This record gives sequence, structure tokens and C-alpha cells, in this order.
Amino acid sequence: MSEREILELRAKVDFIDKEIVRHLNERARAVLEIKRLKQGDNVALYDPKREEQIMANAVANNEGPLYDDTIRELFQRIIHEIRSLESE
Amino acid sequence: MSEREILELRAKVDFIDKEIVRHLNERARAVLEIKRLKQGDNVALYDPKREEQIMANAVANNEGPLYDDTIRELFQRIIHEIRSLESE
Repeated sequence: MSEREILELRAKVDFIDKEIVRHLNERARAVLEIKRLKQGDNVALYDPKREEQIMANAVANNEGPLYDDTIRELFQRIIHEIRSLESE
Repeated sequence: MSEREILELRAKVDFIDKEIVRHLNERARAVLEIKRLKQGDNVALYDPKREEQIMANAVANNEGPLYDDTIRELFQRIIHEIRSLESE
């Protein structure tokens, strides 16, 4: 019986993963667009306050079961990866 | 002019981040449920084939601008973090 349930849950995980990939790329595109606008205005690209705000938001939205520290770590990676993309 | 655009794009990023946090936790809950079912059936918890399938799906769904390697790295972290959660 639980074999079918496991397959259903795996299909759910696959669907969620698809959404995560889509959102990560959507996020990257928005950040690249912000960078383009900032460069046009000659505004500093790096804004540590903004990064703090992103982390605070992510943790505020965390209802678990993942730990706040895990969310922080994952978002640090995401921000870092998108930033490396920008600098090319 | 672009100040307003930047604020709009930041609001978009905040919305996306909220979705990412929600999906990460939804994913964690599904994986914990799979673990519970497997334990009931006395099935091995770790399944390297399944992990390969997850990575292949994530990369297949990647339309950029993020690199496939970045998607792989992020999913390896996500899988790892959710697995550490399971083992508590």
C-alpha cells in the first residue's frame, strides 16, 4: 500500500523541485535587471543592508520543518550564486 | 525613474523568496513523510538512483540564466539539509 503513496509523494517532490528551479531563475533574472538599472544610474551594486533584509524576510517566512539556520545558509548560497552570475 | 523600478523588482524578489521558503519546507515535509512510510515498510531509506533522478530533473527544468552546475550544487545542499533533518 505505501508503495503507491511513496510514488505520489515523489511526484509531489518532483513538482516542487520544478517550481524551485523556476523561481531560482526568475530571481536571477530580477537581480540581473536590478543590476542593469543600478549601472545606468551609477548606483553602488553591493548593498549589505539589502542582503540583511533578504535574510530577515526569508527567516520570517520560515514555518519549518527546516531550521532558520538552514534557510539562512541556503539563501546565502543562492545570493552568492546569482552574484557570481552578475559579475560575468 | 529607475528607483521605482528597482523597488518593484526588489518586491518581486521578496515575493519569489517567500515562495522558495514555502517550497523548501513543503519539500522537507514530503521527504519526511516518505521516510515514515519507508520505515513502516522496512525499506532502505537511502536510494542513490532516486538522488540521480532528482538531479537530472532539476537540470532538465533549468532554462537559465543559472548554470546547470549551480542548480546541481543548490539541490545537493537542499537534499543534504533535508536529510540531516530526517536523521534527528
